[in-house]
Amino acid sequence: MRDAFHEDLDRISDELVQMTGMVQQAMSRATTALLQADLSVAESVIAGDDDIDELRRSVDDSAVDLLARQQPVATDLRMVVTAMHMASDIERMGDLARHIAKAARRRYPENAVPEQLRPVLSEMERVAESLVVKTGQAIANKDVLAAADLQREDDKMDELHRRVFAILLDPSWQGGTAGAVDATLLSRYFERFGDHAVAVANRIVYLVTGSYGSVDEGVVTDPQAV
Amino acid sequence: MRDAFHEDLDRISDELVQMTGMVQQAMSRATTALLQADLSVAESVIAGDDDIDELRRSVDDSAVDLLARQQPVATDLRMVVTAMHMASDIERMGDLARHIAKAARRRYPENAVPEQLRPVLSEMERVAESLVVKTGQAIANKDVLAAADLQREDDKMDELHRRVFAILLDPSWQGGTAGAVDATLLSRYFERFGDHAVAVANRIVYLVTGSYGSVDEGVVTDPQAV
Repeated sequence: MRDAFHEDLDRISDELVQMTGMVQQAMSRATTALLQADLSVAESVIAGDDDIDELRRSVDDSAVDLLARQQPVATDLRMVVTAMHMASDIERMGDLARHIAKAARRRYPENAVPEQLRPVLSEMERVAESLVVKTGQAIANKDVLAAADLQREDDKMDELHRRVFAILLDPSWQGGTAGAVDATLLSRYFERFGDHAVAVANRIVYLVTGSYGSVDEGVVTDPQAV
Repeated sequence: MRDAFHEDLDRISDELVQMTGMVQQAMSRATTALLQADLSVAESVIAGDDDIDELRRSVDDSAVDLLARQQPVATDLRMVVTAMHMASDIERMGDLARHIAKAARRRYPENAVPEQLRPVLSEMERVAESLVVKTGQAIANKDVLAAADLQREDDKMDELHRRVFAILLDPSWQGGTAGAVDATLLSRYFERFGDHAVAVANRIVYLVTGSYGSVDEGVVTDPQAV
C-alpha cells in the first residue's frame, strides 16, 4: 500500500493526465472549427478553456497543500514542483487551442484557411493530437522512452511549420498578405503546442534521470529554413 | 533583523530582479540588432540567453532548497512557489528577445524590417523595456500599484501590435508576403513579451492580495481587431 504522500501525488498526476485529455479534445475541436468554419464548435472550445484553467489552479492548489502538509524533501519535493511546471505547460497548450478557435470565429462565415494550406494544417492537427496523447501517457507512466519519442514526434511538427512557410513564400500562394498573416500565426500556435509537449517530456526525463533535457524552441521559427 | 527564511527569500527576489535586468539588456540589444542589421550584437544576444537560463535554474534550485530546509507553510510557501513561476515567465521573456536577435541574424546583411515598420517596432521596443524595468521594480517592492500600472503599459503594446497588422494589411504595404510573415512573427514576440510581464504582475497581485489577477493574452493576436 502506498503512503499518504504518494497517494496525494498520484492524484495530482491523475489531474495532469486529465488536463491532457481536455487539451486533446480542445485541439481536435479547434481544428475542426477552423477547417470547417464551424462557429458553434469554435465558441465551445473558447468557453471550455476556462475548465482547463480551473483544473490547472486545482493542480497548483493540491501541490501547495501537499507541500504544506507532507513537507517532502529531495526527489519527492522535486516531483511536486515539477507537477506544477507541467500544469503550466499543459494549460498553455489549451490556450493555443483557444487561439486557433478564435481564429476560426474571427473569419466566420468565411473559412480562415485557404485551400492550399488545408492539408498541412490537418496534418499539424494530427501531430498535435498525437503529441498530447503521448504527453498524457508519459506522465501516467513516468516513461522516459515515451518522452524521447515525443521529441521525435515534435520534429514532424517543426517540419510542417517549415512547410507552411514554404507554401506562403511560393509564387503560387493565393492567399495574399492577410492570408499569410493568419497562416503565420496559426502555424506558430501549432508549433508552440509541440514545444510545450516537449517541455513536459523534458521534465519527465529530468525527474527520472536527474539531468535537464533541452528544448530548442527557437529553431523552427525560422522562415528562412524552408 | 530578518529570519533565515526571509533572508533566503530576499536573495531569490534579488535574483529575479537581476534576471529582469538581463532581459532588459537583451531586448534592447536584440532590437538594435534588428533595426540596424548588426550581426555581432545579434550573436551576443543569442549567446547571452544561456546566462538568463542559468540564472533561472539557480532560482529554481534556491527555491527547492529553501522549501526543503525551511519547510514554509501558508503565505511563506506561496511566496516561494510564486518566485518559481515568475522565474519561468522572465526566462521566457529572454527567449523572445533571443527570437528577435535570430530574426536579425537570419536576414543579415539585409535589414529584416522594412522602412514602413521601423517606427512602430522601435516603439514596441521602448514599451518592452519599460515593461521589464517596471516588472523588476514591482518584484523588488512587492508593489501592487506598480503591477496594475504594468497592465496599462501592456495595453500600449497591444495597440502597437494591432498597428503592425494595420500596416501589413494596408494596400500601401511594400514588404510583400515574406516581409509580412517576418513582421507578424516579430510583432507577436513583442506582444508575448508584454503578456509575460503582465503575468508576473498578476502573480505579485496574487501574493499581496490573495486573489488571482487575469491575463487575457489571446485578445490581441487578432488581426481583425485592427
